[in-house]
Amino acid sequence: MSDRLPKKTTFQNAEGDGFVRVKPVLLSQLKSPEDLKTMSVEDLEEVAREIRSEIFTLSEQRSIHFGSNLGVVELAIALHYSFDFSWDRLVWDVGHQCYPHKLLTGRFDRFNTLRTHGGLSGYPNPQESDYDLFMTGHAGCSVGVALGLALGDSLAAKLQESDSLKDSAQTGRERFSVAVVGDGSFTSGPVFEALNHAGDLQRKFIVILNDNEMSICPRVGGFGHYLDRIRMAPGYLGTKTRLHRYFENLPTAHNFLSRLKDALRTGLIGGAFFEDLGFHYIGPINGHDIPSLIEYLKAIKKLEGPVLLHVMTLKGHGYAPAESDPSHFHSSSPVKIRMQKKATRSSDAKTRETAKRALKREVCSKVEQTPDSEPIDEKIADNEKPFTYWAQTSIMRLMRENPRICVVVAAMTQGNMLENARREYPDRFFDVGISEAHAVNFAAGLAKAGMIPIVDIYSGFLQRAYDHIFQEASLQNLPIVFSLDRAGFVGADGATHHGVFDLSYLRPFPNMTILAPGDSADMELAFDFAIRQKGPTAIRYPKTKAERIERIAVPYETGQSEVVRRGSDGAFLICGGGLLKTALDAADTLARGNVAGLPALDVSVVNARFVKPIDAGAVRATLGEFLPTVSAEENALPGGFGSGVLEIANSEGYDARLLTRLGAPDYYIPHGSREEELAEAGLDLNGMLEAFRRSYARFVSLKK
Amino acid sequence: MSDRLPKKTTFQNAEGDGFVRVKPVLLSQLKSPEDLKTMSVEDLEEVAREIRSEIFTLSEQRSIHFGSNLGVVELAIALHYSFDFSWDRLVWDVGHQCYPHKLLTGRFDRFNTLRTHGGLSGYPNPQESDYDLFMTGHAGCSVGVALGLALGDSLAAKLQESDSLKDSAQTGRERFSVAVVGDGSFTSGPVFEALNHAGDLQRKFIVILNDNEMSICPRVGGFGHYLDRIRMAPGYLGTKTRLHRYFENLPTAHNFLSRLKDALRTGLIGGAFFEDLGFHYIGPINGHDIPSLIEYLKAIKKLEGPVLLHVMTLKGHGYAPAESDPSHFHSSSPVKIRMQKKATRSSDAKTRETAKRALKREVCSKVEQTPDSEPIDEKIADNEKPFTYWAQTSIMRLMRENPRICVVVAAMTQGNMLENARREYPDRFFDVGISEAHAVNFAAGLAKAGMIPIVDIYSGFLQRAYDHIFQEASLQNLPIVFSLDRAGFVGADGATHHGVFDLSYLRPFPNMTILAPGDSADMELAFDFAIRQKGPTAIRYPKTKAERIERIAVPYETGQSEVVRRGSDGAFLICGGGLLKTALDAADTLARGNVAGLPALDVSVVNARFVKPIDAGAVRATLGEFLPTVSAEENALPGGFGSGVLEIANSEGYDARLLTRLGAPDYYIPHGSREEELAEAGLDLNGMLEAFRRSYARFVSLKK
Repeated sequence: MSDRLPKKTTFQNAEGDGFVRVKPVLLSQLKSPEDLKTMSVEDLEEVAREIRSEIFTLSEQRSIHFGSNLGVVELAIALHYSFDFSWDRLVWDVGHQCYPHKLLTGRFDRFNTLRTHGGLSGYPNPQESDYDLFMTGHAGCSVGVALGLALGDSLAAKLQESDSLKDSAQTGRERFSVAVVGDGSFTSGPVFEALNHAGDLQRKFIVILNDNEMSICPRVGGFGHYLDRIRMAPGYLGTKTRLHRYFENLPTAHNFLSRLKDALRTGLIGGAFFEDLGFHYIGPINGHDIPSLIEYLKAIKKLEGPVLLHVMTLKGHGYAPAESDPSHFHSSSPVKIRMQKKATRSSDAKTRETAKRALKREVCSKVEQTPDSEPIDEKIADNEKPFTYWAQTSIMRLMRENPRICVVVAAMTQGNMLENARREYPDRFFDVGISEAHAVNFAAGLAKAGMIPIVDIYSGFLQRAYDHIFQEASLQNLPIVFSLDRAGFVGADGATHHGVFDLSYLRPFPNMTILAPGDSADMELAFDFAIRQKGPTAIRYPKTKAERIERIAVPYETGQSEVVRRGSDGAFLICGGGLLKTALDAADTLARGNVAGLPALDVSVVNARFVKPIDAGAVRATLGEFLPTVSAEENALPGGFGSGVLEIANSEGYDARLLTRLGAPDYYIPHGSREEELAEAGLDLNGMLEAFRRSYARFVSLKK
Repeated sequence: MSDRLPKKTTFQNAEGDGFVRVKPVLLSQLKSPEDLKTMSVEDLEEVAREIRSEIFTLSEQRSIHFGSNLGVVELAIALHYSFDFSWDRLVWDVGHQCYPHKLLTGRFDRFNTLRTHGGLSGYPNPQESDYDLFMTGHAGCSVGVALGLALGDSLAAKLQESDSLKDSAQTGRERFSVAVVGDGSFTSGPVFEALNHAGDLQRKFIVILNDNEMSICPRVGGFGHYLDRIRMAPGYLGTKTRLHRYFENLPTAHNFLSRLKDALRTGLIGGAFFEDLGFHYIGPINGHDIPSLIEYLKAIKKLEGPVLLHVMTLKGHGYAPAESDPSHFHSSSPVKIRMQKKATRSSDAKTRETAKRALKREVCSKVEQTPDSEPIDEKIADNEKPFTYWAQTSIMRLMRENPRICVVVAAMTQGNMLENARREYPDRFFDVGISEAHAVNFAAGLAKAGMIPIVDIYSGFLQRAYDHIFQEASLQNLPIVFSLDRAGFVGADGATHHGVFDLSYLRPFPNMTILAPGDSADMELAFDFAIRQKGPTAIRYPKTKAERIERIAVPYETGQSEVVRRGSDGAFLICGGGLLKTALDAADTLARGNVAGLPALDVSVVNARFVKPIDAGAVRATLGEFLPTVSAEENALPGGFGSGVLEIANSEGYDARLLTRLGAPDYYIPHGSREEELAEAGLDLNGMLEAFRRSYARFVSLKK
């Protein structure tokens, strides 16, 4: 079996030398994926080369998901060759690996608009194409929705059969449902829940486990080690009876049959995990061998019941083709040498293993570049460094100062810039994989045992742990620090990734403290405050640079905002660091009297700092004084910071009519640049000025 | 192995004949669980009888979790005998099976206060005892928190060793962490996530799978079938090497060793699922055999790495002891006869199997009685029937009328009163087990395929699917109906089960429509409206009777509230049927001039019906007219219905100072009766009158 598995040599962290660039001759002629079915294997392989070339070309222009897409080129071709996804169902988990799929389904012409405002989304998008069934972005949902599609289709088909208006062309036509899910997503709870359900239903249903075989990179979890063992498993002859079950409906071409036997052998011994759940397990097979993929897919279509096809792929496959220099990686890679050096230095075997893992992870980050993962560049000016960077410096400092601080992340060590923490404090750093729910449960255990866990997860992904924030953090009132990265608008990743709900979902929880630091100085102070709390504390910050606001930043005190600029004609109540600088600019503009229809006005800018508890004093000083006031937040308006201001005004008996609230509107703002998204939400300079004008106009009309 | 498994004969759905009642002689003397360690096996077995007797006695007085607690009596005793949980860590998953644990840990005297206001909680509660580490209630979190405790304790121990103030008595003392999780909870995603993580960490850690062997009751999911197979698996001799790994640290008493071998044999062939994740698997063993449990636990303490001990128990064990009539169940049970009759009537094998399953489930409901599951009693007056009942009649009617309607539940068929739906429409009824996240993903697939899924889940448990409501329902804008049962205060189950966050967590989602029907008539109309929507629609209703409000209830129209009583001196804006009748009573009281300090006032009562979009007309007619207004909801105040009213007032430019908002306060109201909980939140008659008095006083002072 191993001879047909892709070779590791295609991994390379060099500058793309050896990458084959070709003209998209076939790709540009492809009208629909159905055209693939008339092509020869050679042509299909040429299409693969063309797709790779297109992705590589785009990667030179802008930040995209690179390696994961190169890994599924052949798989995407084989799937579209073997199925008709205008009828059959295909769901890509997470979805960032959908570029080849997009190129094959009529979007070649617009491919260079990918991840730009008004252009193609970097994720599947039903508005772009009927071939995209779900807009995905959060991991682990593909198996469940594909199972629902399978059941729904069969129920709908029954209805149609009894319907007089039935479409005779489609009546009785078999309809397949396929989920493609990566090994990283596979450890996510909803995948297991769906496998469990599918195993029970025992209906035809296909799950493709896209196993990246990240042997130089970390697998998180026992399941990962299990996959490692499957690949290593020697052939094993199962009983005739058991094999017979698989073979009765399969094609009999000798060569293929012999290979299928191999796959089943491994399945019988290695796939017990899936078999135990009620799945046929087949694999692992080479995910870069188009004819082989097609043969397996053809065979699988004939199997009854749920099937899991284990496909081995290499992230970044084709980036530095194996053909050109098969020994490159294994021999002279600086990566390997460095690992060995570090390993021999340590005397303790366990520490060595940990250090080795940490290093592997570091190396991996280079191969695994995604738009989300920018390496720490200490050379750029502090004002250009992102909030994530300052979260990281705070976390590193706290881990150094306080041995009780632990860090829990969910597969986003790189995105969270926490490689340093993982390397320097391996005992107190926990990457639980894509398992946000577990991350919070686990942290609750740590906290109960007297440690101080910092759970560092993107705002959007932490949504996966909502119920655990409720039960394990808020209800138990445990000192867990939630570091919510990417809170607010995220730019090119778009609607699936915006973190615009956390203020609404966290505010109602008793015992919860919520902080929204205003700049880099505030980040440090917020973390200092958070780790001293007796209950759960969330720190939310956006995906943007953390410009330092010039002032003496005093330490955080519960429920105390910070007046960054003092004026008497009105105020901006600003929630969060993505907006504070803009508000200061707006105040300057108002002070200069540069806004049409308004006199020169001296307006306060308040750095709210606290979203729970909101500073009642700041509300008294603004709405309580009947001053034109604008609240601004990168969060949905219902239940957000502005809504909290209204609640305080109501409790305190203030007339809140002069408040204009800015925030994410009640629809999903599509992908674009962060600036475009903020502007659409009215959170740019013009939007803030316009909001102030509204408050001021109401002030004038009510004063009369 | 099978001879040591508990016999099914102890199941009985009769009236408790044969139940052994004993005086709590030993139990009443127990000062701490440490006292168990000096007892003989006979005494321990007597303690078990006493615990059973106490639970049975209490069950005659009030509604409690019965079967699940009888099932873990011996397990609880063996655990406290084998560990010292004042030092070691014990987490009961879900927690409703904690009664024996409570009786053993110093709460015998107060046991009869269980589930009453001010008395013991029906769930673990850290405020009651140091032996209760976490307040639990939502399933599937035990493994993660216990793993966190294990890691946290070992980190804390290292700190203590280097600390000059170290507690020398405890230094170096081994500390175990044990999670006890039922087979029902086991399919929940967070359990899998935690097992995956534990398998990776490979540190000492104990998970006890409490397998209820619900062979007459439904197991949901492939995992359940897997457990069935484990129990059936014939002995299998593993390789010497593999066995050796287990044995090297084990005690060598011959008899025990031979039994352990049996357990390991099964483990080697049957426990592959767990072994694949990196666990030692041992079992299944008889969970009602105290000496055997103690021996296994002793042995397991010596194993390195994570261990899963598979324990077989019977829900309701000891209710009708096997000794008295071992053949009772197998021979003459009416249950069995009925099943066979129905089965032979059907010709289609598949339908027969489905019908059989449905019947099994029905039978199960009698054995499985919990405080949450009241059977439908058609004889009680309509006004006494709960909202759940009217949800059920609506769902049944819609399933009958529209073949596209599907129902998805998560292990709460009984609690949701949907046994009828399961029986009559087995093809369109899906119980996915405790997998709320998957329930929503699955429903999204159904919806995309053209079906109309109704996801019927308790408000609190739906929190588990928060991110899927976001991504799979709201973002895709799919027509999924969420039927949120138990929204609001739930009475004796208390803080873990209150459904007081759903309005806050659903309101911010674009495309979402949220309904809160006011009475039984409204329930039907709300469902009629919901299934016609193009996007996701939530219907939330409380755990209480749905009194019919006399009026002609008109069909739902988007964003239209219903004026149930019309007055000109003020208004109650009422969100949801648990409060509408109370508000009408309050209005009557005000009209009679019976409230001290207030003149007779003619006040409107508005049945809000919509929480998203809230009826802007109703806000205009009240706050827009500067009338004293009270909003009331069974939801947290931050971000809830009242907050939504403030948002509209703000957008429309109304002075909202006359609004007084009633809702759940910013702390967790503990268990009690629903009436006590509502009163504590000010949502009873007095609370509403007091709130109106506040609004009126402000009205008077501002009018001057």
